Amino acid sequence: MAYVMTTHRLPERDDPKEYQHTIGPGVDPAVEIEPGDTVEVETVDAFGGRIESEDDKPSEALDMPHINPVSGPIVVDGAEKGDALAVHIESIEPRGEQPRGTTCLVPYFGGLTATDRTAMLHDPLPEIVKKLDVTEAGIEWDDDITIPYEPFIGTIGTAPEIESIQSLAPFKHGGNMDLPDVGPGATLYLPVNTDGGHLYLGDCHAAQGDAELCGVAVEQATTTTISVDVVDDWALEWPRVETDEFIMSVGSSRPMEDALRAAYADLIDWLVADHGFDKYDAYLFLTQVGGVRVANMVDPNYTVGASISKEYL
Amino acid sequence: MAYVMTTHRLPERDDPKEYQHTIGPGVDPAVEIEPGDTVEVETVDAFGGRIESEDDKPSEALDMPHINPVSGPIVVDGAEKGDALAVHIESIEPRGEQPRGTTCLVPYFGGLTATDRTAMLHDPLPEIVKKLDVTEAGIEWDDDITIPYEPFIGTIGTAPEIESIQSLAPFKHGGNMDLPDVGPGATLYLPVNTDGGHLYLGDCHAAQGDAELCGVAVEQATTTTISVDVVDDWALEWPRVETDEFIMSVGSSRPMEDALRAAYADLIDWLVADHGFDKYDAYLFLTQVGGVRVANMVDPNYTVGASISKEYL
Amino acid sequence: MAYVMTTHRLPERDDPKEYQHTIGPGVDPAVEIEPGDTVEVETVDAFGGRIESEDDKPSEALDMPHINPVSGPIVVDGAEKGDALAVHIESIEPRGEQPRGTTCLVPYFGGLTATDRTAMLHDPLPEIVKKLDVTEAGIEWDDDITIPYEPFIGTIGTAPEIESIQSLAPFKHGGNMDLPDVGPGATLYLPVNTDGGHLYLGDCHAAQGDAELCGVAVEQATTTTISVDVVDDWALEWPRVETDEFIMSVGSSRPMEDALRAAYADLIDWLVADHGFDKYDAYLFLTQVGGVRVANMVDPNYTVGASISKEYL
Amino acid sequence: MAYVMTTHRLPERDDPKEYQHTIGPGVDPAVEIEPGDTVEVETVDAFGGRIESEDDKPSEALDMPHINPVSGPIVVDGAEKGDALAVHIESIEPRGEQPRGTTCLVPYFGGLTATDRTAMLHDPLPEIVKKLDVTEAGIEWDDDITIPYEPFIGTIGTAPEIESIQSLAPFKHGGNMDLPDVGPGATLYLPVNTDGGHLYLGDCHAAQGDAELCGVAVEQATTTTISVDVVDDWALEWPRVETDEFIMSVGSSRPMEDALRAAYADLIDWLVADHGFDKYDAYLFLTQVGGVRVANMVDPNYTVGASISKEYL
Repeated sequence: MAYVMTTHRLPERDDPKEYQHTIGPGVDPAVEIEPGDTVEVETVDAFGGRIESEDDKPSEALDMPHINPVSGPIVVDGAEKGDALAVHIESIEPRGEQPRGTTCLVPYFGGLTATDRTAMLHDPLPEIVKKLDVTEAGIEWDDDITIPYEPFIGTIGTAPEIESIQSLAPFKHGGNMDLPDVGPGATLYLPVNTDGGHLYLGDCHAAQGDAELCGVAVEQATTTTISVDVVDDWALEWPRVETDEFIMSVGSSRPMEDALRAAYADLIDWLVADHGFDKYDAYLFLTQVGGVRVANMVDPNYTVGASISKEYL
Repeated sequence: MAYVMTTHRLPERDDPKEYQHTIGPGVDPAVEIEPGDTVEVETVDAFGGRIESEDDKPSEALDMPHINPVSGPIVVDGAEKGDALAVHIESIEPRGEQPRGTTCLVPYFGGLTATDRTAMLHDPLPEIVKKLDVTEAGIEWDDDITIPYEPFIGTIGTAPEIESIQSLAPFKHGGNMDLPDVGPGATLYLPVNTDGGHLYLGDCHAAQGDAELCGVAVEQATTTTISVDVVDDWALEWPRVETDEFIMSVGSSRPMEDALRAAYADLIDWLVADHGFDKYDAYLFLTQVGGVRVANMVDPNYTVGASISKEYL
Repeated sequence: MAYVMTTHRLPERDDPKEYQHTIGPGVDPAVEIEPGDTVEVETVDAFGGRIESEDDKPSEALDMPHINPVSGPIVVDGAEKGDALAVHIESIEPRGEQPRGTTCLVPYFGGLTATDRTAMLHDPLPEIVKKLDVTEAGIEWDDDITIPYEPFIGTIGTAPEIESIQSLAPFKHGGNMDLPDVGPGATLYLPVNTDGGHLYLGDCHAAQGDAELCGVAVEQATTTTISVDVVDDWALEWPRVETDEFIMSVGSSRPMEDALRAAYADLIDWLVADHGFDKYDAYLFLTQVGGVRVANMVDPNYTVGASISKEYL
Repeated sequence: MAYVMTTHRLPERDDPKEYQHTIGPGVDPAVEIEPGDTVEVETVDAFGGRIESEDDKPSEALDMPHINPVSGPIVVDGAEKGDALAVHIESIEPRGEQPRGTTCLVPYFGGLTATDRTAMLHDPLPEIVKKLDVTEAGIEWDDDITIPYEPFIGTIGTAPEIESIQSLAPFKHGGNMDLPDVGPGATLYLPVNTDGGHLYLGDCHAAQGDAELCGVAVEQATTTTISVDVVDDWALEWPRVETDEFIMSVGSSRPMEDALRAAYADLIDWLVADHGFDKYDAYLFLTQVGGVRVANMVDPNYTVGASISKEYL
């Protein structure tokens, strides 16, 4: 780890083309950092700010497939294939003019609608846009209801070795996991598949329920501050999360049971490798004390986290 | 509701044939009660007590398909098709000689093994049995670890109109949901499909993690005390749960995303019918504040609960 | 096998209550036969004949859950748990007044619609009924198109040991497989789980494409003639089919890949047990020559057959 | 279409780095052609020829993720986003020294094994390699069995607009569909997402059963001859196939029912747009006459084709 830790900034760009819509190798660094450095990233929202009022129609405002823009890549000096990045989420502050939060129904996208994959003969559900005032004090849903501000990074991942994966998809590299546990105070571990790791992030949410039911959380532009360390020789198959309370493995696949199998199997691997468990003991024990977070049921892969409280480690 | 509430007892039976292994209509009542009455049920564990030591092999000890015995049916006077039963879980006390808790690996059963349905060419995982001392103070996992005693009813359901469903399977009638929220203090709502409702229960767990990973929680015999009311003219498609903190709809299906779709869609129906929500508002709002509990990933159907905090109702 | 083979008749019943809507044990025999005997069964269609014109609405005409009526049980003398029934399908002749074929769209039922399990917020698709003239010469779809008459038994199964499964559901006992290979000339093998086997059948189709897309084939009343033998000591996990051309194992589950895994794994078991294959040779060989039939994608379980040509046996 | 049709050659390369392992935009053309031109492609097998004997272990011989090499991109002059490529498969001839066919079991890959996604605690199945003599007269499986030579292109696709998808994965762009219908005489239609279309192909199979059970067909190096036309203004969501007998839409997703839903829904779109069908008529009609081919149950997405006989068009 570096002795002098520098703070870098990735400011908002005027040109939407300076954002990435895939997470892959071979892209020029947006910033190069040393292990231990801090980066302040001005993220834009998942729509690139294109849904400006409740009169906008998502089907008209969006420029597919150029959605879910991510900032980056952040290239970390010395990170090599077989290492992991440890991304500490320091803070996530809302940014931009009010109403700066957006949720909406996008045609044929979401958990309770036909989609391009769960294809059906139904007409689409109506397009509804809801713009919301967001501050760190909360999200004003309506006159009566304020939702707590519980922000997290929806999309964050490292470049796969050879693929460039659309930023909408979560998989082994992280990506659009939409996992509420990736918020301030947490550390996210991601695999390093290419020299420098090539970290991208964006799509921050001011709040989100389990499974991100309609597919659109309270989307917001933010100033997100992270610091990044390198864990040498820690080859990860799936992303992992650590907080003060728990450790969690994160699987992304379809059907949902496969995402959960991958998450729990990876957590068992972790318990065996680093916490002194026998494989079958871990299997029996997690049966009694494991925790499951369904992060999303709407993306190209569904994402599920499996966790264990640190009190048992 | 009755003015005089009676307490009934369903004691442990000596003859295993006096337990049921399906949940269906047309079975003589084990007890007939009035709405509002209380029933103390001496449940046996999911193995009918057949796994008595860590030397027992589940594959030899069990008498398939006669597993997961349930007590009942409890027949409720006046309950008619189209009503719901409201089952209040009063208490769940462990019962029997120590070590009275059991968890184990059953060949080709569980979340991280090939099964009869997710069929593969692998040899089975080893059969491992773990017997555990269980008291209301906790479950002694080993010398270092005590797991909190957080009991619930694993299998509880009402007779379908025409089917008799094996007690291992969860579905619209309830059944083997393995849902940790069905514990003391909660009310479970189940559909009445036949006169009297015909309620069965058993398979209590002293503790269980989300998804019941290996398929066998800390199984225990109990004295479980419930009281039962009838909600007139409340036709339920799926079971529902209410606690002091939340209301929850419970879906059981495969793949897991279908269980979750059913749960969330039913919760939206509930919010619209009884809590003044517009359908799409409920969809957008649950996206931000909904909670998901994965109950099991191991039974003939997977079970998932979708909930909303009462603070929003 | 009996030396004198008798032909029995199960004629159409006037009272719909004389049909069964579940497949289970404990039902009085509709007919008792000797192994080798023949039974002529006058089946009614999957709607019990309730959809009589194109003006009928399925949602109004049907009396849920009393749909998909089956005839039986046919009880076979000497059949014991652990045996198999060999059901030879001799002929399937259409029956009743023209237009005697029916297909239709039933709300929230089918392969390209939201359903009770794949629950969504869409309004139902329109209810459309199509009545069709059916003869052994073909099905008159419209003025230009005649579909070949290729009949089969949609629902056929033996009683499980303890469950009574709704006739709409396929599983290990057979049931509503909707498998076009169960037609004249084929032999269907089903497990015997109870003394006498208790065989039920109905829901014959005049034609059906792979996967039974909308969930309703060309439904018809028939005179279906079968003969039934007993195969001693042949415990089947899943139904199996034999024709002049191939042998096939039939899996029913969700998601569809699990149905296919079960089918192929059972076929490997069959090749190893009865055809001299090594397990992994069979796995490699079926990879090159196996055949797959998707029977239905609409029922409570999806059904898929995996087969191998007899030229390789 | 061009009046003078040229034949191009893409010969085998000595340097494995001259093959692609992703299908994406932004790669320099391997060859540029005019619409109507023919290309002879010397494909290598899915292992890049690295499994040379039955003593090789796939886990040691392969250089993940550099597997399933494809040739290309073939860039077609004038093809623009919104067009389709029509790829006519002219011939597929085996190439290289005998035994030039390869099938094998790869650890944690296949239809009846735990995988990285359907993660379990089982040890891997054994690694078995089978080398096979392949000619156009057939594949010598053993002394008794010859499998017919029925070749097809396992992996063929066009660049997505922004993603680079690993060559192992099938999706809307085609890719590793492992669809036996993509053989000599067939025309495959693929979407054009980028100027020139950027067509890649490889991974030819000498034979394969439905679903490619163990994940490895009879893999072979070939000389594959295709000709390529451009269909203007025919924006495809999913690949389509046409032969003398049928038209077919091809879906790739998980779970398998979603692949089939996508395929059948796309086929209905095709029937409505180009063949005069009403949407619901097509739905009802395909229910009676549709055909389903399960292409693979082993790749990152499962692939299923839905077809209708041309006699009905």
